[in-house]
Amino acid sequence: MKNLHRVLALGSLLALCLHALPAAAEEGMWLPTQLAARAEQMKSLGLELPAEQLADLAKAPLNAIVNLGGCSASFVSADGLIITNHHCAESALQYVTNDANDRLRDGFLAGSRAEELWAGPGTNLLITTETVDVTADMQQAIRSAKSDAARFKALDLREKEIVKECEATPGMRCSLVSEMGGNQYRLIKARELRDVRLVAAPPEMVGFYGGDVDNWMWPRHCGDFAFFRAYVGPDGTSSDFDEKHVPFQPPAFLKVAKEPLEQGDFVMVAGYPGETSRLVTAEEFSFAEKVEYPWQIETMQQLIKILDEVSELSESNRARLRPSRFGLANYEKNNRGMLDGFRSSNVVARVTARDAALGDFKGSKELKAEILRRQEGYERDALLGWMMWTVDLLGNARLGYWLAREKKKQSDLERDQGYQERDWNRLSDRVERGDAEFVLEADKRLFVWFLNRAAALPANARIEAIDRFLKPYGTTPEAIAKAVDELYAKTSLLPLDAKMGLLTTKRADIEASSDPALKLIVDLYPLLRKLRDDGERESGADARLRPAFVAALLKAQGDNTYADANSTLRITYGTVRGYDGPDGSFYKPFTTLAGITAKHTGEDPFDAPKPLLDAIASGDQGGYRAPELGTVPVNFLSTLDTTGGNSGSATLNGRGELVGLLFDGNYESMAADWLFDTANTRSLHVDIRYVGWYLDRVMGAGNLLRELAITPSFAK
Amino acid sequence: MKNLHRVLALGSLLALCLHALPAAAEEGMWLPTQLAARAEQMKSLGLELPAEQLADLAKAPLNAIVNLGGCSASFVSADGLIITNHHCAESALQYVTNDANDRLRDGFLAGSRAEELWAGPGTNLLITTETVDVTADMQQAIRSAKSDAARFKALDLREKEIVKECEATPGMRCSLVSEMGGNQYRLIKARELRDVRLVAAPPEMVGFYGGDVDNWMWPRHCGDFAFFRAYVGPDGTSSDFDEKHVPFQPPAFLKVAKEPLEQGDFVMVAGYPGETSRLVTAEEFSFAEKVEYPWQIETMQQLIKILDEVSELSESNRARLRPSRFGLANYEKNNRGMLDGFRSSNVVARVTARDAALGDFKGSKELKAEILRRQEGYERDALLGWMMWTVDLLGNARLGYWLAREKKKQSDLERDQGYQERDWNRLSDRVERGDAEFVLEADKRLFVWFLNRAAALPANARIEAIDRFLKPYGTTPEAIAKAVDELYAKTSLLPLDAKMGLLTTKRADIEASSDPALKLIVDLYPLLRKLRDDGERESGADARLRPAFVAALLKAQGDNTYADANSTLRITYGTVRGYDGPDGSFYKPFTTLAGITAKHTGEDPFDAPKPLLDAIASGDQGGYRAPELGTVPVNFLSTLDTTGGNSGSATLNGRGELVGLLFDGNYESMAADWLFDTANTRSLHVDIRYVGWYLDRVMGAGNLLRELAITPSFAK
Repeated sequence: MKNLHRVLALGSLLALCLHALPAAAEEGMWLPTQLAARAEQMKSLGLELPAEQLADLAKAPLNAIVNLGGCSASFVSADGLIITNHHCAESALQYVTNDANDRLRDGFLAGSRAEELWAGPGTNLLITTETVDVTADMQQAIRSAKSDAARFKALDLREKEIVKECEATPGMRCSLVSEMGGNQYRLIKARELRDVRLVAAPPEMVGFYGGDVDNWMWPRHCGDFAFFRAYVGPDGTSSDFDEKHVPFQPPAFLKVAKEPLEQGDFVMVAGYPGETSRLVTAEEFSFAEKVEYPWQIETMQQLIKILDEVSELSESNRARLRPSRFGLANYEKNNRGMLDGFRSSNVVARVTARDAALGDFKGSKELKAEILRRQEGYERDALLGWMMWTVDLLGNARLGYWLAREKKKQSDLERDQGYQERDWNRLSDRVERGDAEFVLEADKRLFVWFLNRAAALPANARIEAIDRFLKPYGTTPEAIAKAVDELYAKTSLLPLDAKMGLLTTKRADIEASSDPALKLIVDLYPLLRKLRDDGERESGADARLRPAFVAALLKAQGDNTYADANSTLRITYGTVRGYDGPDGSFYKPFTTLAGITAKHTGEDPFDAPKPLLDAIASGDQGGYRAPELGTVPVNFLSTLDTTGGNSGSATLNGRGELVGLLFDGNYESMAADWLFDTANTRSLHVDIRYVGWYLDRVMGAGNLLRELAITPSFAK
Repeated sequence: MKNLHRVLALGSLLALCLHALPAAAEEGMWLPTQLAARAEQMKSLGLELPAEQLADLAKAPLNAIVNLGGCSASFVSADGLIITNHHCAESALQYVTNDANDRLRDGFLAGSRAEELWAGPGTNLLITTETVDVTADMQQAIRSAKSDAARFKALDLREKEIVKECEATPGMRCSLVSEMGGNQYRLIKARELRDVRLVAAPPEMVGFYGGDVDNWMWPRHCGDFAFFRAYVGPDGTSSDFDEKHVPFQPPAFLKVAKEPLEQGDFVMVAGYPGETSRLVTAEEFSFAEKVEYPWQIETMQQLIKILDEVSELSESNRARLRPSRFGLANYEKNNRGMLDGFRSSNVVARVTARDAALGDFKGSKELKAEILRRQEGYERDALLGWMMWTVDLLGNARLGYWLAREKKKQSDLERDQGYQERDWNRLSDRVERGDAEFVLEADKRLFVWFLNRAAALPANARIEAIDRFLKPYGTTPEAIAKAVDELYAKTSLLPLDAKMGLLTTKRADIEASSDPALKLIVDLYPLLRKLRDDGERESGADARLRPAFVAALLKAQGDNTYADANSTLRITYGTVRGYDGPDGSFYKPFTTLAGITAKHTGEDPFDAPKPLLDAIASGDQGGYRAPELGTVPVNFLSTLDTTGGNSGSATLNGRGELVGLLFDGNYESMAADWLFDTANTRSLHVDIRYVGWYLDRVMGAGNLLRELAITPSFAK
């Protein structure tokens, strides 16, 4: 699941608008407020806390759960110590890496609070403080509109107003989400902390042991954990790093479980799952299987090949391209998993039968026609979207021009979402981080690849601005390569200060510029604008047509339902349980230290550090041994219903105590984003006993253990 | 385990002389006569027959068990129908393949008895009829000798006399084996049938589904079965194929089980395990781990590379080289498995401790010194042995010259074993079969590779005849290539009739020949002879020194012992049981039809035939479904103690009924040839229900099913 939270965030251009779904058995990403009604089932599975306590954002454990830059995380001490996944800390570890210390590769342990390192701009912490039902308000806006485009505008304006009002309170970040197919709207209020510092992380070959090979796979042996600490001003206000800041005192924190976790035990996870698509129409399932996933898989395989070729040229290229390559490889594997799941479980046939059973509902024919229409021209639009996303030069030019246009508008209320004043800081953070991963040769080759694909588009779906750009050169591979060479030779937008400068350049100056990258973007703008406008119109149509579809589904499936994931706080519960592997094998719910040694080959991605191998070989297990296994557990499986964005979530036992960290799903879980199957969908967790053993026996992090109220067995 | 029986037979130059061992739990390759004493344990595991019945060669089930060209096999009808593994029928399937019908690739089903096809020369059936203890006789010979060389000669002469006397009865094949470290000698009397015909076999992509990739692995999905029928003259005598022959009426045959086999059930196998090395000294274990396996693995990897390169040149090359390539790949994987097992189970340390605990015994220091001495000069001797074995031209020249020298001797009693009159037919069969796999380019490249290695040997261990051969050319790679080119250009020994003719050429004519291959062999002869003489002397020393070592071991380990495998009839028993796979997984004891479909990729070795996939998809399972699994089982695991040569063995339930066919061991079982570990050593079997289902639903072999007393569910 590595980096998926990031990929999903960036790739949302292609994401469908998603809604609500029915639930059975242990399936379900529940709103906290829904849990009281499920108290009996939770108790029968092993919950010891009152279910009502889980509904209260102002009480433990929920008030210890936070959103950390798209991942989930939790407070684990009174002094603002935070635990999350190593892969959620990757970006921060890269930020604090320098020539002297490769902290991503080698890991990090602050010897004292003074040594804790600021994780950089963009690593911000959001603590959900309140959610408010704004359904009536939004539905009022829907009813008033005369067209789908106007409907979007009305919803969008109302959303901006509500968010702006909410963010008038300093330190608040607010967002508005549509749920249950637009039958419900909620405002999420969160407190934002911007001074987050790294406390500890294992080396990459512990945190991401098995790399791409093991990613999404079981059995697994990842030490996918990291510790941060939140800091605030002495007066409690938040800003970027400041020496005068003091550790944040959270309202509550999670306690590490003392009782051993065992097979069959109740577990739950509170976190911020990103996106699921369980309640879309059969036509959307079918399109994903037949067009979207195959196209994306093929595209990503080509892009990965290009990045690999450029990585071969130098070690520095390899290091800079690594995050992008990981992100693509992860997403490509995800798409393949989706496709495998669709095919092996006959997903489309099942959903087609589901929809057929609904019969007609209000607007059913129109919804179907609307969805089929928006699937036309997919290849051109996807090609353009992926080009803007992956070719850094074009992405920055587009961002600069778009932002310049939006800035000219009078107020945030008129601006596109994502380009409002509240977003400006984040946009420059993104440009700065992107620059650290920029490799000229890769950027050019990617651009060349996209232009060759664009040149081959059918006559009725051309990208005319690209045709105009290529006209002086022609469309042979050699001509395209020449066009790109000349563009990169002439543009002045490659240095970081030029990229940053573009974010404050005026629209008229960009339009008057002779920079070839800006000229191309200005020429592409009408089509990009049209695609966004189409999206807005489609969103308006969704607001009008989807509610009846979802209502029909809810009616057919009873009230056992929850909203599709949308990056808001959810709770999912289930049990620790294995599952059937390939024919003839069964996957047990726990892996152990011995498996790390067994997988070690000495070569990436199975190059376990010697101190870890030596510690395993020593047989020293202290208080971290699981009696059931006779050794220290490393990772475990549960039946929990999770997805990207849940990464880093605290895994809690029936008493609400910390037993692990969710860090991935199994291969079969990918297709569960569309249709959940209890038989083989599993979430993957780091066992907190491995975290403790590693901190103790390998890192010697006695102080950190004591802060977690664990008595060290080995460390001082 | 594919082809290992063959590789072991050919590779015996390098095999150590092997002996006896202690037993615990379900470990043990028992002589039938030993079973009465184990009746209680067998009964507790589920044996329903009287254990004494298993000791009687003249009664069922033992009188239904036969040896088929190095594999095990069983009679399964009153009309001489025989079941064994597909991989034991590979050579026969290749023999009956012609331009019109690729029966190895596509499988075969005789529509009637008239269509059954003779399996060719060399596919002979041996039915053990009696075993006689000749220990006193042989020990008399040992005592009379004055030196180790003389001791070998005395033993060898006495063995030949006993075998000759035994084979005076027409149709008998006899052999004499040393057991328990030379504390015991047995004469094995067997009836030989030479007209064996193919009845049915599935396509190679069913019988050897998964190929090299799955070989030695679990979970497995092989239809590794084939049917033959034995024919004899109307008067009951045996000879090669004759139209007048009639089906052989065996004294007994196995019945297919009607009760479903389940996890935990008792199973046993009667068959002819080839060779184990469990009771050799720690010095021999250590040498195998440190020198022999690493050297052989590296050598085989190089040879495989050469065969792959030549296979790339044409499809005909690929087809001809396939058996050799399979044999090498299988043996290479076997050696790696051995080495992995040695290392992961600390085998040498454990055996060193075992030997140390024995203390001194009669001749203990001398035995140790003798073993260390014979390990010297390993590389030169191994290189020469592998060159003679794998370079066809040299192998044939050596065979012809050796045979010519031995033929000049007055009687079989003076001749080397393997070159007696009784062996002459088999030797020409072997040459003929070898010719079918000959590829000139591969032979030359292999020879070049060996010469380059020989040229690099240290000064104190040169092969002088090779030095003399290369002298006119030099030892650069180019010079060696030229030498080989010229030799193959000049030799007249490449056509099959020349190879066959050499087997009847006189010694003097060979020594006077100007053929460069024969000149080289005549020059190499003194060293080859010396190596054989050394081997004979070592064998004489073993006869003198090993008995005390083994006696000391037996005393230390109690009387729970059985002889090491030596290709004689043994019974092993245990239960159907899974085992722990890689950390985090458990291997279940049965695989099922669904796994075949799941593994299918459409590419070799996972290219399941469409009729099989369609039959699986149809859901038709008839009477072959296992109630425990709800589907048709394909392969299963047992705790049985088996090795190469057991391939094709009938697997029997507690009532002595046929439940499957042993066809392989798991990866961990390879090292069990040296030291058995119940925890992870497993035998792999084809479930007889898969055989029945395949014959019925896929092949439509109704007549064959009825002959097996199975009522077809689908076939006519």
